[in-house]
Amino acid sequence: MKREDFLAGPVTVTAYDWVPELAQGFVRDLRLRWALEEAGFPYEAELLPHAERESPENLARQPFGQVPALSVAGRSMFESGACLWRIAEASDALLPADQAERNACFSWLFAALDSLSPPVDLLAFLRVFAEDREAARRLEPQASEHLRAKLARFADALGGRPVLVGDSFTVADLAASFVLRNVEPTGDLDAFPTLKAYVQRHTSRPAFRRALEAQMEPFRKNAARYAAGR
Amino acid sequence: MKREDFLAGPVTVTAYDWVPELAQGFVRDLRLRWALEEAGFPYEAELLPHAERESPENLARQPFGQVPALSVAGRSMFESGACLWRIAEASDALLPADQAERNACFSWLFAALDSLSPPVDLLAFLRVFAEDREAARRLEPQASEHLRAKLARFADALGGRPVLVGDSFTVADLAASFVLRNVEPTGDLDAFPTLKAYVQRHTSRPAFRRALEAQMEPFRKNAARYAAGR
Ligand SMILES: N[C@@H](CCC(=O)N[C@@H](CS)C(=O)NCC(=O)O)C(=O)O
Ligand SMILES: N[C@@H](CCC(=O)N[C@@H](CS)C(=O)NCC(=O)O)C(=O)O
Repeated sequence: MKREDFLAGPVTVTAYDWVPELAQGFVRDLRLRWALEEAGFPYEAELLPHAERESPENLARQPFGQVPALSVAGRSMFESGACLWRIAEASDALLPADQAERNACFSWLFAALDSLSPPVDLLAFLRVFAEDREAARRLEPQASEHLRAKLARFADALGGRPVLVGDSFTVADLAASFVLRNVEPTGDLDAFPTLKAYVQRHTSRPAFRRALEAQMEPFRKNAARYAAGR
Repeated sequence: MKREDFLAGPVTVTAYDWVPELAQGFVRDLRLRWALEEAGFPYEAELLPHAERESPENLARQPFGQVPALSVAGRSMFESGACLWRIAEASDALLPADQAERNACFSWLFAALDSLSPPVDLLAFLRVFAEDREAARRLEPQASEHLRAKLARFADALGGRPVLVGDSFTVADLAASFVLRNVEPTGDLDAFPTLKAYVQRHTSRPAFRRALEAQMEPFRKNAARYAAGR
């Protein structure tokens, strides 16, 4: 998919019309919205009720019955990681020009999803989603230590630089700071001031703030309706 | 990276010279070996002792101090998912010719790593790696149910077809069957006969058997030395 495909439109991203407060601002359509904002590609959100995520229509575009899916010029794709890369490739805002640096961004995109995210998600499971709270609490220290070790390696790799590759913000930073943003409020980054600054710096970008606001807006609008329905 | 780069050589994959029995046959350099075998790209393994994984040399090519890393014509990259895609792109053995099908493979590669793998890894943590065995056992049913739900969606998406995209084996099947192979011995696939057959079919491929044998060979050779060292 090329720049022209994104600019010819329509570009649509699937998202939910409402989610519980805990998830607000963290649903993964935000990754795509952020990348599209950085790239300057106009898009529309196609909002679906969470209860309809396993509708035939949504399963056809996202086989696990989730969001996001991305549609560009009539072609649909899924997995936020895959979509991020396609947006980045079509733009000049999210990848360096140098081919070796582009390749490094490709590795780092996978690293965000497949090296940083697993320990972050394990902790989220233990802290939030596990139903047996007492058992989960007992496993937390081991999972925290596992995350801490990964963060230490990541902090070493970043060093004193503001970005992972080259000298400006790329899709690699977008993905990594999106993942680390989950553990910023929980204090897990406190021992890593450069990582805390990294997340804060990138999530202060105007494109991120616009994307976040665009995800939140329907949640506010639909809050009353969902509160009434429960 | 192009076909010629892989054929000009040298292509090297980092791997361990020995790992505990539980991990033998499951270390992720096997993903790259398998893809390289399918593609017909000759390669060499660069074996490192697990204890040296955080050496400056290994951290320079794999920032988390792990394996695998891939080096092609002097250029190094990391993350098994990223490497798989680069091998697939350079070969005609792991991707369909049709562009829409290639894009579908890209989404499915991410799906294997970021949708199928998380529930598989969570169960592996609870069953094997968690130190508080009793607490872990109590969380297992919820994690099993979580995996079961994902597998049901994946089985629906696969349907009665032997492969995910088009009509022959692709990098998407390589990644998905590699991930699902972890839960094949544990019985989690028993409720999904098509998935069990999917994993067995793809891991019977001669390229997989050669790759597996190549990973195992140094483990056998070095077993006595490591046994003596403990
Ligand atoms: N690997 C997928 C994961 C997508 C995902 O986890 N989506 C969540 C929202 S962030 C979802 O739709 N969850 C609803 C559910 O599974 O009930 C991706 O990154 O696109
Ligand atoms: N996301 C990475 C994960 C690599 C990984 O987990 N490597 C394991 C072997 S399968 C490893 O080296 N573990 C050693 C350790 O962390 O102690 C990839 O897929 O390349």
